[in-house]
Amino acid sequence: MRVGVLTGGGDCPGLNAVIRAIVRKGVQEYGYDFTGFRDGWRGPLENSTVRLDIPAVRGILPRGGTILGSSRTNPLKVADGIGRIKRTLGELEVEALITIGGEDTLGVASRLSDEHGVPCVGVPKTIDNDLSATDYTFGFDTAVGIATEAIDRLHTTAESHMRVLVVEVMGRHAGWIALHSGLAGGANVILIPEQRFDVEQVCTWVTSRFRASYAPIVVVAEGAMPKDGDMVLKDQSLDSFGHVRLSGVGEWLAKEVEKRTGNEARTTVLGHVQRGGTPSAFDRWLATRFGLHAIDCVRDRDFGRMVALRGTDIVRVPIADATSRLKTVDPALYEEVGVFFG
Amino acid sequence: MRVGVLTGGGDCPGLNAVIRAIVRKGVQEYGYDFTGFRDGWRGPLENSTVRLDIPAVRGILPRGGTILGSSRTNPLKVADGIGRIKRTLGELEVEALITIGGEDTLGVASRLSDEHGVPCVGVPKTIDNDLSATDYTFGFDTAVGIATEAIDRLHTTAESHMRVLVVEVMGRHAGWIALHSGLAGGANVILIPEQRFDVEQVCTWVTSRFRASYAPIVVVAEGAMPKDGDMVLKDQSLDSFGHVRLSGVGEWLAKEVEKRTGNEARTTVLGHVQRGGTPSAFDRWLATRFGLHAIDCVRDRDFGRMVALRGTDIVRVPIADATSRLKTVDPALYEEVGVFFG
Amino acid sequence: MRVGVLTGGGDCPGLNAVIRAIVRKGVQEYGYDFTGFRDGWRGPLENSTVRLDIPAVRGILPRGGTILGSSRTNPLKVADGIGRIKRTLGELEVEALITIGGEDTLGVASRLSDEHGVPCVGVPKTIDNDLSATDYTFGFDTAVGIATEAIDRLHTTAESHMRVLVVEVMGRHAGWIALHSGLAGGANVILIPEQRFDVEQVCTWVTSRFRASYAPIVVVAEGAMPKDGDMVLKDQSLDSFGHVRLSGVGEWLAKEVEKRTGNEARTTVLGHVQRGGTPSAFDRWLATRFGLHAIDCVRDRDFGRMVALRGTDIVRVPIADATSRLKTVDPALYEEVGVFFG
Amino acid sequence: MRVGVLTGGGDCPGLNAVIRAIVRKGVQEYGYDFTGFRDGWRGPLENSTVRLDIPAVRGILPRGGTILGSSRTNPLKVADGIGRIKRTLGELEVEALITIGGEDTLGVASRLSDEHGVPCVGVPKTIDNDLSATDYTFGFDTAVGIATEAIDRLHTTAESHMRVLVVEVMGRHAGWIALHSGLAGGANVILIPEQRFDVEQVCTWVTSRFRASYAPIVVVAEGAMPKDGDMVLKDQSLDSFGHVRLSGVGEWLAKEVEKRTGNEARTTVLGHVQRGGTPSAFDRWLATRFGLHAIDCVRDRDFGRMVALRGTDIVRVPIADATSRLKTVDPALYEEVGVFFG
Repeated sequence: MRVGVLTGGGDCPGLNAVIRAIVRKGVQEYGYDFTGFRDGWRGPLENSTVRLDIPAVRGILPRGGTILGSSRTNPLKVADGIGRIKRTLGELEVEALITIGGEDTLGVASRLSDEHGVPCVGVPKTIDNDLSATDYTFGFDTAVGIATEAIDRLHTTAESHMRVLVVEVMGRHAGWIALHSGLAGGANVILIPEQRFDVEQVCTWVTSRFRASYAPIVVVAEGAMPKDGDMVLKDQSLDSFGHVRLSGVGEWLAKEVEKRTGNEARTTVLGHVQRGGTPSAFDRWLATRFGLHAIDCVRDRDFGRMVALRGTDIVRVPIADATSRLKTVDPALYEEVGVFFG
Repeated sequence: MRVGVLTGGGDCPGLNAVIRAIVRKGVQEYGYDFTGFRDGWRGPLENSTVRLDIPAVRGILPRGGTILGSSRTNPLKVADGIGRIKRTLGELEVEALITIGGEDTLGVASRLSDEHGVPCVGVPKTIDNDLSATDYTFGFDTAVGIATEAIDRLHTTAESHMRVLVVEVMGRHAGWIALHSGLAGGANVILIPEQRFDVEQVCTWVTSRFRASYAPIVVVAEGAMPKDGDMVLKDQSLDSFGHVRLSGVGEWLAKEVEKRTGNEARTTVLGHVQRGGTPSAFDRWLATRFGLHAIDCVRDRDFGRMVALRGTDIVRVPIADATSRLKTVDPALYEEVGVFFG
Repeated sequence: MRVGVLTGGGDCPGLNAVIRAIVRKGVQEYGYDFTGFRDGWRGPLENSTVRLDIPAVRGILPRGGTILGSSRTNPLKVADGIGRIKRTLGELEVEALITIGGEDTLGVASRLSDEHGVPCVGVPKTIDNDLSATDYTFGFDTAVGIATEAIDRLHTTAESHMRVLVVEVMGRHAGWIALHSGLAGGANVILIPEQRFDVEQVCTWVTSRFRASYAPIVVVAEGAMPKDGDMVLKDQSLDSFGHVRLSGVGEWLAKEVEKRTGNEARTTVLGHVQRGGTPSAFDRWLATRFGLHAIDCVRDRDFGRMVALRGTDIVRVPIADATSRLKTVDPALYEEVGVFFG
Repeated sequence: MRVGVLTGGGDCPGLNAVIRAIVRKGVQEYGYDFTGFRDGWRGPLENSTVRLDIPAVRGILPRGGTILGSSRTNPLKVADGIGRIKRTLGELEVEALITIGGEDTLGVASRLSDEHGVPCVGVPKTIDNDLSATDYTFGFDTAVGIATEAIDRLHTTAESHMRVLVVEVMGRHAGWIALHSGLAGGANVILIPEQRFDVEQVCTWVTSRFRASYAPIVVVAEGAMPKDGDMVLKDQSLDSFGHVRLSGVGEWLAKEVEKRTGNEARTTVLGHVQRGGTPSAFDRWLATRFGLHAIDCVRDRDFGRMVALRGTDIVRVPIADATSRLKTVDPALYEEVGVFFG
């Protein structure tokens, strides 16, 4: 049996760990052959492949990025995309396709599998942790760790100089990274896309923090927005990860806070640093287990399914479950954390 | 209302984060006063206390250890221990006691609460992750991260010199740290206390690894034991953390492997380095949430209960549940991971 | 004898290590008393002090920032500044003043010492490493380490997505951080303030790098400028560290490269993260030795002098030597490193 | 022109950075071809080679170990060793040999060059920093950083439990790693091979530290020895790095201190973890510059020479200078640091 593997969307620490686990178990335990498709859906569309065997996955566990390359190519938006994919799979005698990706990549896999009879298995990937049906996705823990370390570092500067430091972290639609890193880093204000924020409230928190003679750190998700629509972002074009570019909400907020409170305020935009580099131990564990279970789905011919984390177990759910709605921060959880604001 | 807090047993990254969350929420939202008891159960036994208020918990989130100190003092083994504790609580007008600790500390809290009417709330703590009733305990992720980083570093030496490297990690009764760090670090053999190992099998894996021209890394939990009882550990006295001292199974195994395979083998014993220093972001998140929910138990007068992690939720369970049996590695999980051995 | 200590200018990892060494040796070996002045020159101007003894310096070795606080207050620009400082020192019976700071702080110390008979000893501090008369200053190694780790992380994203990543690092007048972190991180282009760069040359390097099928990483010092003056920075106001604010050369360059080469380009501005947090081992070593030698200068009544690193030795030089000219990157060194460009 | 490269002795973070710099500059600027010899002197002895060109050195800058492999093979102890090496070089038309190694490897290179007309250039390598003629060697800063981080972590455990923690670090003949990491980590006692220590003095320091209600951390170099010869190390056999095996001075000392002071004492032996993994930014900088200057020596046909660091400059010295005597810790420096003991 020959199994295809592809990675789609923005890169995420742990992708290589998934690939390695799939190949190691597939070859050693089930005797499968593998075809790596290059750059997400572009691979099967254009019959662009990468050798994928045991030697190819050696040493990749601790490496960020993906040895298969990635892209945002969407075959549903390409003329005869489905047909071309089916022809490639037929020519290469690929009998099953493991797709590792986020909402877009899995959305295609779901339709391919459910509507076009292409035997797909999904592995969820989103650094923002906003995919439904799984407790966590790999890459998220790494990103939170990097953001937390940055916040740790900013504390000393904030306090030595008594200034407001705004840290803009990833999270276009969901505030998970902001919430986790802000809490772990001891931030005094955390702003997330799920709840429009009130600049005056932020200023009140900032001022009260100074009164306790500590300098405030404000963590803001890139997708967070002020309540009253008074925000005019000059450069809101998205990059190909779907993240806003520099000159975003963090910088806007720093200027507002400075203007309204009279305290000097500065912004740090962590940007792509959050998604690069070696995965955390947790992400390697999770990604590896996802890979081991994905290849078991293939063996069981359990297609149209995605692996997911529930507590400490890996379970299987319909791919469509992952893409049906975004997993956002529960207002009750946000309120729970709010005890540390100000 | 006055609430007492104590930390018992071996220290663990995240203890201070729990304490901080309890005090921040207790003071700000419920208007409670706090008494910190020094050095675990020794505190209420000897009326030894520490000031515990908002200024006392400032800046402690990222710090390892515990500002309250810890000990292994067991009041059940002290003459009139229960009586002395009750008298101290009475004198200080402490109406509820939050006990942060492992099997021993919580065992006492459970009996105090259930049999002697002392209103206790438990917070689970074990760096080995071997407490039932909770998916994870704080400190474990930090320990796994430290062990994984060490294994990452050993790879280059192993391969530059073609030698066997044995890494002994914590885990007296359960192999969680070995399993997670071994998998995350790409170890070729992982040995855990739950399954006696066969030295010949280890040698076979080591030899096959060399044949693939890679040098093997063996991760062994300090509590792992060989099958055939041929192991004679000279210095098996436990330290006050309940861990075996140096000259343990790691060193024994390296000598056996060297003797039987002819390959040079060396041991690294990570020891206390695994339990010190700043907690990981995950552990700060988990510890903080445990603290927030523990003080809510007090507010709800929901005593005899322990906070626990289930998936992404914090739940409450009877303290006795945590101490009734050890959470060990499921054989099926160990087998799942075994695909990477050899 | 009573000795005053102050820290001026932007904060820098290692300041606390200097303070600790001064106090530990001063108290233990020479029996001195200490007065900490708060917030740089503002302290002696306004008689604002901090207790400074052995307990005050406990545990500060690994902490970033400065327990004395800092400011950019310049007493030469304050009415009767010199007079007020002399009066404060007289009232407090401070017989010697150790000033830890950069060009500005040391410039004042030099004039106080040489022209006004105030017995000063200088300790050089600049995160940019641009002070003459010393091989290195503490904080620089930490900043280079943080920038290098960020570049390491960006590699995987650059290569998984084949895009240009621009990293803007500190360095207003000197390119030391860019040069060291760029070289250590394997950057393909390094741009420094000492040499105006040619955007077309940068584009040529970027393009040639893509041709070798690797994605380029461009490290640019915040003070680097293009050759042809075609750069219009909108928001060139400096912050109180003397660094340019966001929307600087990094973002400008990414847009130019994207426009001219057609390759997607993104910017990361590391900002204040580079100067915060725990100092590296090297910086703790250097800062501690500076402190030990500074208090020896006091004991020797060797005033008007600054401690400096020469090879592995700590030497004493006139304070004026440090402030006479900036230590910039030698063109020959920049050329040496240029072999890795493109 | 064809240039040979080999790495000998224990591995060291930065070896790959040297190799990369040599090849990048040699190929790009001078048009040389390269032959990599496998496993130190074994390579030219047995004509065992590795392809060494630009693609071979891609991505190796941040990797520990050496892509050429290493060994302790000494051709002076092999029958007709010199003759075999000369024949291999002749057959392969290798006209110059760059040898990267420590005292032993460079000792051979020196004799080959001076007595047998083999054109050698040396690059100094010792993780212990004990080679004369150079201020620092690469790998040392990385090792110090790892040891310092471990000591940082141990502080919290020491203080939460009031116990003595002994950390044994590398350093068979010189105490540089102990001195630097001990100082940077805030150790209370540092013991080095250069000065026999008095166990009673250590106990006095330990006890006085407890009296100040802080727990002591003792850093001991593996080669440190007690004064009175009362130490009996059971297992003093050296491993192939020339380091003592486990059950060394650290464990012996912990037992003595425990026995004599009554305080619980524990040992951590960092071992091979100190020499593995990614090099620090400083070590990558130093290693790269060594490589760039080594290939310049070849171009200048300046053989029998070794590159070395003096201040911030790379200079050339006779290889024999490096091997003539060990660079040990100056007693004055040890005394300077002693202010922090106890």
